[in-house]
Amino acid sequence: MHSVGIVGGSGYTGGEMLRLVMQHPELTLGCITSRQDAGEPVTSQWPQLAAARKIRFVAPEPDVLAECDLVFFATPHTTAMSMAAPLLDRGVRVVDLSADFRLKSVEQWEHWYGVRHETPELIPRAVYGLPEIAREAIRGADLVACPGCYPTAVLLGLVPLVEAGLVELDSLIADAKSGVSGAGRKATLGTLFGEVDENFRAYGIDGHRHLPEIRQVLGELAGMPVPLTFVPHLLPMFRGLQATLYATLKPNAENIAERFVERYADHPFVTVHEAGSIPETRAARGTNMCHIGVTVYPEEQRVMVISLLDNLVKGAAGQAMQNANLMLGLPETLGLEAPPFFP
Amino acid sequence: MHSVGIVGGSGYTGGEMLRLVMQHPELTLGCITSRQDAGEPVTSQWPQLAAARKIRFVAPEPDVLAECDLVFFATPHTTAMSMAAPLLDRGVRVVDLSADFRLKSVEQWEHWYGVRHETPELIPRAVYGLPEIAREAIRGADLVACPGCYPTAVLLGLVPLVEAGLVELDSLIADAKSGVSGAGRKATLGTLFGEVDENFRAYGIDGHRHLPEIRQVLGELAGMPVPLTFVPHLLPMFRGLQATLYATLKPNAENIAERFVERYADHPFVTVHEAGSIPETRAARGTNMCHIGVTVYPEEQRVMVISLLDNLVKGAAGQAMQNANLMLGLPETLGLEAPPFFP
Amino acid sequence: MHSVGIVGGSGYTGGEMLRLVMQHPELTLGCITSRQDAGEPVTSQWPQLAAARKIRFVAPEPDVLAECDLVFFATPHTTAMSMAAPLLDRGVRVVDLSADFRLKSVEQWEHWYGVRHETPELIPRAVYGLPEIAREAIRGADLVACPGCYPTAVLLGLVPLVEAGLVELDSLIADAKSGVSGAGRKATLGTLFGEVDENFRAYGIDGHRHLPEIRQVLGELAGMPVPLTFVPHLLPMFRGLQATLYATLKPNAENIAERFVERYADHPFVTVHEAGSIPETRAARGTNMCHIGVTVYPEEQRVMVISLLDNLVKGAAGQAMQNANLMLGLPETLGLEAPPFFP
Amino acid sequence: MHSVGIVGGSGYTGGEMLRLVMQHPELTLGCITSRQDAGEPVTSQWPQLAAARKIRFVAPEPDVLAECDLVFFATPHTTAMSMAAPLLDRGVRVVDLSADFRLKSVEQWEHWYGVRHETPELIPRAVYGLPEIAREAIRGADLVACPGCYPTAVLLGLVPLVEAGLVELDSLIADAKSGVSGAGRKATLGTLFGEVDENFRAYGIDGHRHLPEIRQVLGELAGMPVPLTFVPHLLPMFRGLQATLYATLKPNAENIAERFVERYADHPFVTVHEAGSIPETRAARGTNMCHIGVTVYPEEQRVMVISLLDNLVKGAAGQAMQNANLMLGLPETLGLEAPPFFP
Repeated sequence: MHSVGIVGGSGYTGGEMLRLVMQHPELTLGCITSRQDAGEPVTSQWPQLAAARKIRFVAPEPDVLAECDLVFFATPHTTAMSMAAPLLDRGVRVVDLSADFRLKSVEQWEHWYGVRHETPELIPRAVYGLPEIAREAIRGADLVACPGCYPTAVLLGLVPLVEAGLVELDSLIADAKSGVSGAGRKATLGTLFGEVDENFRAYGIDGHRHLPEIRQVLGELAGMPVPLTFVPHLLPMFRGLQATLYATLKPNAENIAERFVERYADHPFVTVHEAGSIPETRAARGTNMCHIGVTVYPEEQRVMVISLLDNLVKGAAGQAMQNANLMLGLPETLGLEAPPFFP
Repeated sequence: MHSVGIVGGSGYTGGEMLRLVMQHPELTLGCITSRQDAGEPVTSQWPQLAAARKIRFVAPEPDVLAECDLVFFATPHTTAMSMAAPLLDRGVRVVDLSADFRLKSVEQWEHWYGVRHETPELIPRAVYGLPEIAREAIRGADLVACPGCYPTAVLLGLVPLVEAGLVELDSLIADAKSGVSGAGRKATLGTLFGEVDENFRAYGIDGHRHLPEIRQVLGELAGMPVPLTFVPHLLPMFRGLQATLYATLKPNAENIAERFVERYADHPFVTVHEAGSIPETRAARGTNMCHIGVTVYPEEQRVMVISLLDNLVKGAAGQAMQNANLMLGLPETLGLEAPPFFP
Repeated sequence: MHSVGIVGGSGYTGGEMLRLVMQHPELTLGCITSRQDAGEPVTSQWPQLAAARKIRFVAPEPDVLAECDLVFFATPHTTAMSMAAPLLDRGVRVVDLSADFRLKSVEQWEHWYGVRHETPELIPRAVYGLPEIAREAIRGADLVACPGCYPTAVLLGLVPLVEAGLVELDSLIADAKSGVSGAGRKATLGTLFGEVDENFRAYGIDGHRHLPEIRQVLGELAGMPVPLTFVPHLLPMFRGLQATLYATLKPNAENIAERFVERYADHPFVTVHEAGSIPETRAARGTNMCHIGVTVYPEEQRVMVISLLDNLVKGAAGQAMQNANLMLGLPETLGLEAPPFFP
Repeated sequence: MHSVGIVGGSGYTGGEMLRLVMQHPELTLGCITSRQDAGEPVTSQWPQLAAARKIRFVAPEPDVLAECDLVFFATPHTTAMSMAAPLLDRGVRVVDLSADFRLKSVEQWEHWYGVRHETPELIPRAVYGLPEIAREAIRGADLVACPGCYPTAVLLGLVPLVEAGLVELDSLIADAKSGVSGAGRKATLGTLFGEVDENFRAYGIDGHRHLPEIRQVLGELAGMPVPLTFVPHLLPMFRGLQATLYATLKPNAENIAERFVERYADHPFVTVHEAGSIPETRAARGTNMCHIGVTVYPEEQRVMVISLLDNLVKGAAGQAMQNANLMLGLPETLGLEAPPFFP
């Protein structure tokens, strides 16, 4: 058994992290923190987790966190970068669900996030936690930067095409749609029921913070900078994120769908659908699965890939747990296979 | 390990039943039937259950069902009454989620359901499957009639008051609200997204089929007929059902909330909230829990009880599993405690 | 033509007020204020009102407001009580959609709202603006306090019963359900999409601010204090409010539905449904109509009344306009009869 | 005053057509038909249209329809093609909201709709009713084929680019998302609340019936066949449709947004947003407006156009009314400018 801590337990990803720890057979909860709710039972925020009614939130104390084997940061950016170093020094593994260690370029990070990075020396040590492209590196890591929800869906849908050189690199488009859980649990006007319900809207079209992260990975795979038109939209629902991806096929690119099947044959959390089966977001709700559907339009010499997931699971807490399993030498799927309810 | 069958696997309760069997440590799935989808993988209807992708629906064959230790009927009424007898004869236990064996009076049943009952001789053998009032009888039963979703919520909220004689029996009101999953998975105009979304409406106010079932139980407890004003409403959501119950307290009726706590102390699937904590339906989503909140209005000498649950779990498939556990001699909570995701 | 002002134009009721002024044939908009959005076009908040794209929000200036014939306060409580007096002094009529002038007892008001009332001398001057009980008084008023959304629905459903002495006064129950628009357009955790969607919950069960207002009116009609059990709930939708009302009929109380028909025969914004026709909230969406359905349960000697409306129209801005029409000597229905879209 | 008839009054577009006729100052309703609801008041289906409570549905009788000046067909395909000819013969103008006369090629039509066209001789007579490209032709027409909801949004977003030769014709992509109202009011499993709520899914990716219609118009403008990758998705909401359009700019293509402003300067129902203002679907709800936002990504030499509308108004009934106004010599905007409620 390993002891884990959760920092930021009253946000949506923190609550999801708690659920996953509760159903994990090899993990125990060391502590779960929430500054604002310290002292309260976790059921004050997560009444559905009745079995956890005796667990209480605590304030984030370094010494308490240091007793854990691994700590998850389910916090807004800038928290992990200030708290991770002393934990790592004391041998605690860190899985950061926020953006603090995702970008290799400090300059880029400071540009996109608008603050100074406090611990740039940790950045090279961080492994970008997408197990489908970095499983071995994650196994040996003590600091993992979990990808954002959009990057996870977009990358899993584009990687097989880019890796194998099947598409024109200047033709990539990601039309992405996300449920509102991706915006976190902050009281803002734009995420009120009255503003989201019965509405659909694009946002961040001049540059979303998840874009540099996607381009960083694609650029590494391609060995050159890869442009991407990335348009995120907000869906009137809570969980679920779909990226509809478009690319122009290179002449003679063939057997596209089969390439996806092969690429992910060894990866338990990617399901490639058969031709004619179109995935829908409810298939991923409450699971750590990314569903992928591939369609080729011969007349336009174009491929369209649907890549979808639950933004709080494969897009956040589930992927964090998948990373933690690898880091702790446990089976990759442990604690992540409970059948979800519908819808 | 016990083998179970599910009849009616492509409806909402059938799909939920499948999920619960999958996560039960002592049950294996013998078969799951669906006339219309026979031969198809269950993931054609329930794509979220990826781990079940090799299981296929079969047509309902008596001989195949007879090989199970226990069969769940997640079917519209009239199916179980025609299929249960031969199974019982061959020693198979039957849990019926439909209404076929709920009413003790054949005459009443035929009045409310408008067809002739084919196997009235089985009715006396059936135990009304609300474990919180009939746990021991269920343990010895081979035929259990699971209560409807409204009766479960209404009865769990009223039983402590009626049993202990705390309220005026002619004062009972149940203002009930249900998500649309209670209506099943049939293509009807009234359950289209366009008719349910952004709408709230009462229905069945001249007499809902769940009313005689509730009155039957209350009458048995009180030893006399108990009237009830029962007004169901449809909520623009999928899962969740709340009964807001009103009754006039008898003079000197005291410590009402404490009575609820005591009454359910030994029942793991009822949570009585402390004064001031108002339960909400999301607390029950995906769980087998009934949440109860009790408020006394001294000026009006009235008690108001909120009783809520997930209509597909404690209101249907979860309760069926709770019954099956008791019938099979297993712990009552086995396979029913997975922490649910939010919301 | 009359010139009107709207104070508080960026809230939901303020936006609705703007829509109603735009479609009113005898009103022109003098100004619409919003402290935070002053200088911005109103379409920055209300993009659907394309025809108003040249109108801009202004800061609330007494001298500008004083040039209007009538001013609507679509503000949180405490704004109108500090701004109304100088307007009234300069001959401007005031329609307050907030709670500032609803309660006749200053003591009660200060108890429920937790602040000192700044202009108690105006309270006797204010007419409670429910035209169905006070049409003539409203015609002569210069200060009208519009009822809250819950009081409008509850009162229109109970008034015919209480006025005519048809029910036991100690038996009244109002089980009320409201869409989230009733909570206003403030960034709060409890009204986020993630907290409202797929959820149903009671709130304010120990005393909602709308309760004293309802009891004040019922008490005046009955000539004695009238108790009421009032339980509000939040619906996962935006517009729409239903009160399901219960009362015990006095012996010999008869022709209950007919009494409702007669009572409202002369009132264009109340529709009493025929027996067997159950109103639903979508019928009222976008309209100033209150729909009422009456059902008698003879066995329990009880009447159940469904009373429903759109909380932003008949429950707020529409009722304010109906009052304004009366105050300005215009036909009561002017500008309030545009057919709404569905749903 | 002109008299109009509505065929198919109990569907969503028929109900919307009724609303628009009611608020039109120069039209009277001759009749509204519904086979299944003949004899019933229209409020049995559309309770929100209280002012129409005395109007009843009638069965579709040619002689009654022939007394109208203009008839709207708000019917599934194949109805208008069998009923239009005798009406036209008797001088009645026809506006068909269905697909019967949209495609110029009978062969194509029969391929996509899978039935024989009964009146191919009428096809050349029909004008494709998108006023923004064919206003003058519509003025002189007696038979207008209203575009589908997807074609309206896609064409209004692409036409300025294709007409002016600004984009590579082999680069066009339309990623489209529609609320469920576009599927009509038929009882089907796929449009149940339980299947649409909290879900997002692509459909029709192998060829949607709206595709040939779009390609027909683009081909006419370009003078050559124009390929298009068209991927429709279903949104968990009722009204609203957005096409997110992508195209590669030709070298030296400049001032793209300004081209849109100029192109639609004379068209009252297209609003081109300023740079930085992203339209959202709620802006169009209940209105006949198409909102367009244009963004250029210089690095990728790509333009992204958001084009959105209410599928029941500009995508159906509103556009039909706009056409009718032109055909009857009335101002194009008459009866189409009521400010909508929010959201």
